Amino acid sequence: MDTKYIKMAMEYRNLIDVLMGDKDFADIVLYNGEVVNVITREIYTADIAIKGKYILLLGDCKDLIGPDTLVIDVRGKYLSPGFIDSHMHFESSMLTITEFSRLSILSGTTTLVADPHEIGNALGPVGMKAMADEIDLVPNNVYLVVPALTPDCPDLETAGVDVTSKDMEELLNYKNIIGIGELQGFSNAKHVYRNTPEVITDLLASTMYARSKNMVVDGNAPELFGSELAAHIISTGGKCSCHETTTKEEAMEKLRQGVYLFMREGSTQRNMAECVRAVTEEGMDSRRCILATDDMVAADLETLGHMNEIVKRTIKEGVNPVEAIQMVTINPATYFGLNHVGVLAPGKMADIVVIDDLNEMTVEGVFIDGKLVVSKGRLLIDLPKYTYPPEVKNSVKIGPISEKDLQIEAEGPTVRVRCIDVIPDQNLTAKLEETVKVHGGVAVPDVTTDTLEIACIERYSRTGNIGKAFVKGFGMREGAFAESVAHDTHNILVVGTNLRDMTLAVNRVIELGGGIAIANRGRILSDMRLPVGGLITDELDGYEVSEKIAELEEKVKKNLGCKIHAPFMHLSFLALSTSPAWKITDKGLIDVNNFKILSPIVE
Amino acid sequence: MDTKYIKMAMEYRNLIDVLMGDKDFADIVLYNGEVVNVITREIYTADIAIKGKYILLLGDCKDLIGPDTLVIDVRGKYLSPGFIDSHMHFESSMLTITEFSRLSILSGTTTLVADPHEIGNALGPVGMKAMADEIDLVPNNVYLVVPALTPDCPDLETAGVDVTSKDMEELLNYKNIIGIGELQGFSNAKHVYRNTPEVITDLLASTMYARSKNMVVDGNAPELFGSELAAHIISTGGKCSCHETTTKEEAMEKLRQGVYLFMREGSTQRNMAECVRAVTEEGMDSRRCILATDDMVAADLETLGHMNEIVKRTIKEGVNPVEAIQMVTINPATYFGLNHVGVLAPGKMADIVVIDDLNEMTVEGVFIDGKLVVSKGRLLIDLPKYTYPPEVKNSVKIGPISEKDLQIEAEGPTVRVRCIDVIPDQNLTAKLEETVKVHGGVAVPDVTTDTLEIACIERYSRTGNIGKAFVKGFGMREGAFAESVAHDTHNILVVGTNLRDMTLAVNRVIELGGGIAIANRGRILSDMRLPVGGLITDELDGYEVSEKIAELEEKVKKNLGCKIHAPFMHLSFLALSTSPAWKITDKGLIDVNNFKILSPIVE
Repeated sequence: MDTKYIKMAMEYRNLIDVLMGDKDFADIVLYNGEVVNVITREIYTADIAIKGKYILLLGDCKDLIGPDTLVIDVRGKYLSPGFIDSHMHFESSMLTITEFSRLSILSGTTTLVADPHEIGNALGPVGMKAMADEIDLVPNNVYLVVPALTPDCPDLETAGVDVTSKDMEELLNYKNIIGIGELQGFSNAKHVYRNTPEVITDLLASTMYARSKNMVVDGNAPELFGSELAAHIISTGGKCSCHETTTKEEAMEKLRQGVYLFMREGSTQRNMAECVRAVTEEGMDSRRCILATDDMVAADLETLGHMNEIVKRTIKEGVNPVEAIQMVTINPATYFGLNHVGVLAPGKMADIVVIDDLNEMTVEGVFIDGKLVVSKGRLLIDLPKYTYPPEVKNSVKIGPISEKDLQIEAEGPTVRVRCIDVIPDQNLTAKLEETVKVHGGVAVPDVTTDTLEIACIERYSRTGNIGKAFVKGFGMREGAFAESVAHDTHNILVVGTNLRDMTLAVNRVIELGGGIAIANRGRILSDMRLPVGGLITDELDGYEVSEKIAELEEKVKKNLGCKIHAPFMHLSFLALSTSPAWKITDKGLIDVNNFKILSPIVE
Repeated sequence: MDTKYIKMAMEYRNLIDVLMGDKDFADIVLYNGEVVNVITREIYTADIAIKGKYILLLGDCKDLIGPDTLVIDVRGKYLSPGFIDSHMHFESSMLTITEFSRLSILSGTTTLVADPHEIGNALGPVGMKAMADEIDLVPNNVYLVVPALTPDCPDLETAGVDVTSKDMEELLNYKNIIGIGELQGFSNAKHVYRNTPEVITDLLASTMYARSKNMVVDGNAPELFGSELAAHIISTGGKCSCHETTTKEEAMEKLRQGVYLFMREGSTQRNMAECVRAVTEEGMDSRRCILATDDMVAADLETLGHMNEIVKRTIKEGVNPVEAIQMVTINPATYFGLNHVGVLAPGKMADIVVIDDLNEMTVEGVFIDGKLVVSKGRLLIDLPKYTYPPEVKNSVKIGPISEKDLQIEAEGPTVRVRCIDVIPDQNLTAKLEETVKVHGGVAVPDVTTDTLEIACIERYSRTGNIGKAFVKGFGMREGAFAESVAHDTHNILVVGTNLRDMTLAVNRVIELGGGIAIANRGRILSDMRLPVGGLITDELDGYEVSEKIAELEEKVKKNLGCKIHAPFMHLSFLALSTSPAWKITDKGLIDVNNFKILSPIVE
């Protein structure tokens, strides 16, 4: 037997001895709290006794109080299992795991299941394993579910590294990795299946391997119904989740067909209110309803909170508070097979949130592994900043571009062009056509109709591709901004009112080795380095990132006149070739529904 | 990758091709049924398409119907996932797995999780592996959870083989074994812990090993509350079930502390009605409420049914029909981690029950692995009788006994004796004292006060022990009966009105190599051989066993005057040294609550 289990047997034996009154007492007793029992869906007055990392007893714990027991009177406070975010990407916050944890633990999140899909696209297994390594140093529970395929649509875009089934053995046997994450590739079942059927076979090889190891396979099935949804479910090996369900009808269909419904409520994508109607209006059993953020920016974590905020919003939609808390505790723990967390019961890890007001979900204290880590909104533990190793840095491998590289050639005094139409707070876009002027054989952006140019520059030095098109919705009056965050392949995206500033912004991002840059009137207004895979900074802490992004956003709004909320996140999703209707990748303007690359010029 | 998973990948790829309309069609479509969706807790009209062993789609399946598709109109019928019995012992039915399946499949049971605890006590790993071997030949899903300890109380009784943690590696890596079953040893936490603490340490070694392999550990916690219950939970590694909860308060305590509540409803032990009040009266979330039979006799299977009957009774207690069906489908599948069964959804095994009347739970048809195996109450498949190998037979290893061996010595014309007081339909007994006459230095049974003698004869030739005491409740006027079924160590138990018939009955059981024998007035009235471990017959089919037992019971009632229902099962539980108050083992009269062996004579 592994020594790990012998050690655990001894720890458990010690707990039994305390319970049987044979030796020693509880380390901590939370006395007279209002226990949120997510198993029975009740709230009642009880104590919780803790010994070492474990919960010893839930109920009357008086007999377990000894002379050295720390008794904390929690009268009137609610005691909940620590919250779980079931699907999230650290990369979206631009934070290291450490810095994300610094902000999210304060809100009661004790377990994170992250999909390192972005760093996987940029760096492949090397990047994902570097994240798995960082996990060992944080106090909360963090698990990774890795992509089985990068890029999402091999025919439509270029990633830094192509991850396939050949990488699964290496990844799924690596520490802190518990399965396969979202299967973007099959999410557009109809298109990927029709156009690149070999991708399906390769994904199946990966999912069957994961299933053979009893590991999760998340999947993801936006806008799939009926046979297509069933095909997706089967491609995951028969058990999967979807975190991109946007309507009540879709939520009902997913639940009925056995999909675990991850109701997304992130910084820009907010689908919970619509999804949860399957429960509030149709009375569906909510055991497979789970809350997840997918993408959160640092500022929201800092100012709004994390899963506590999402639970609060869910309660406001008419869900019973305990049922809403089930969606971030027992429901995801059951889905992931995380038997040691998600409920308050003997033998479970003592991950406990002390809540002041249940409807407002105000978190007053947090215990992780039996240790008080948050009290009255302050982090009590030392969490040193984490520095990533050199092999995950310098992921931008191209030299500077020229204005000419960004030109969209056209004829005539004016020309009809194709525009991606940004939908605020959605990954989805609409499509439309617009007329722009042609100067010297080049179609030029027109701020009067908000018709700006957008480009995607392959940054891994694999193809040298640059995709170009037009975009509507940013509302900028001048300048340009660029970033090396561009879902999911993370080439360099730029949007701008003129080619000079666009070129300048792109070249600054290249110079930074990845990051964000804002240019106006021929000079750089501001920038931020994202050295880890061009996605994450390990130079700033969570609060500094929040502040820096706020400063950048402010400049884009004030100086460039941008009208859109969270402009960097919105821009980054315009490269997501798996979500309809039109997107931009290094290969060009993508017609997602038809799996085709379009010219920016209407012929 | 294991070829098994490559094969599965190809099967799955085939399903996807059908769903995408690319080739072929469904094999079977159940058209226009009332789907019992145990995920959403709904009933609605839909079709189910089946391809090979799998469910293809739930919903509108018209497009999957091809020229060779078998379309079955199930208008007005209810379609439920196949039922799961989560805790049962084949040995209690005296049937092989094959014969139990023959009877239970008719009632819609498609999955059985069995604890081969009885054969484990009699024969150890050899017996349990022989059962695991039989599983490969039956059409339904059968899994074993094995004991980590035999006998239950090493200080109080003698088993055929002592199973301990040393056997776990061999057993838990054997096919069809998914974990550890009931931990009788710790169920009486207070006693075992106090009296044989080394047993706890050994059990922990076993449970930690099972947990390391992500396998279940059932546990069992009758009458435990608070700290003792918590100690039991922790001894199982933190996740366990209890199938011997008898009161509503106990049920609430178990659920609140995280125990999966197996509400038992078997042939003699009926605890569901009381347990389910935690749901019907207290409104507790029922996701961890599960129905199980524990011990069923063949006649009940034949005449009453199996899980369908238990669900029907649960509905009659006021539980919503779909919620009751959840307790035999999704709830246990989730507990055991059986991801391929328990719900009707794409990619799951096509184990489907067609129900005519939902409140009466009348089963009209059953599909297993996509094959129609039951139609209109008839089994459609060939199920050949299974014969066990010689190594699990001849488990009775002693020679004949004499009347003298059964004598309880005493002085005086009369003597106060200790009587086990049988409680009908319970494993529990009461205790009382009675006065009997002494003839020639021997205390003799007295039919006028229903004070009979009971004895337990060690049959494995390990100690030669014979435990003796008195018993009240059988009401026999003459004769005796004996059996080699005696929970849990399965020595030979005999109850009788006189030593001559008792000796005769015991010696016939020995001669049979295990079984049941009834003696009266110096001759054998009837008998039945149980060659497999002295517990099971592989000579008769399910119906023949049912008939034979009925004949034996009739003789015990008519000829001996026995007043008790199911006399053989009642007698067999009088040896169960883990359930209070007084029991009999080969070591003598057991005071369970005090973990002591008592003299049958009050001093």
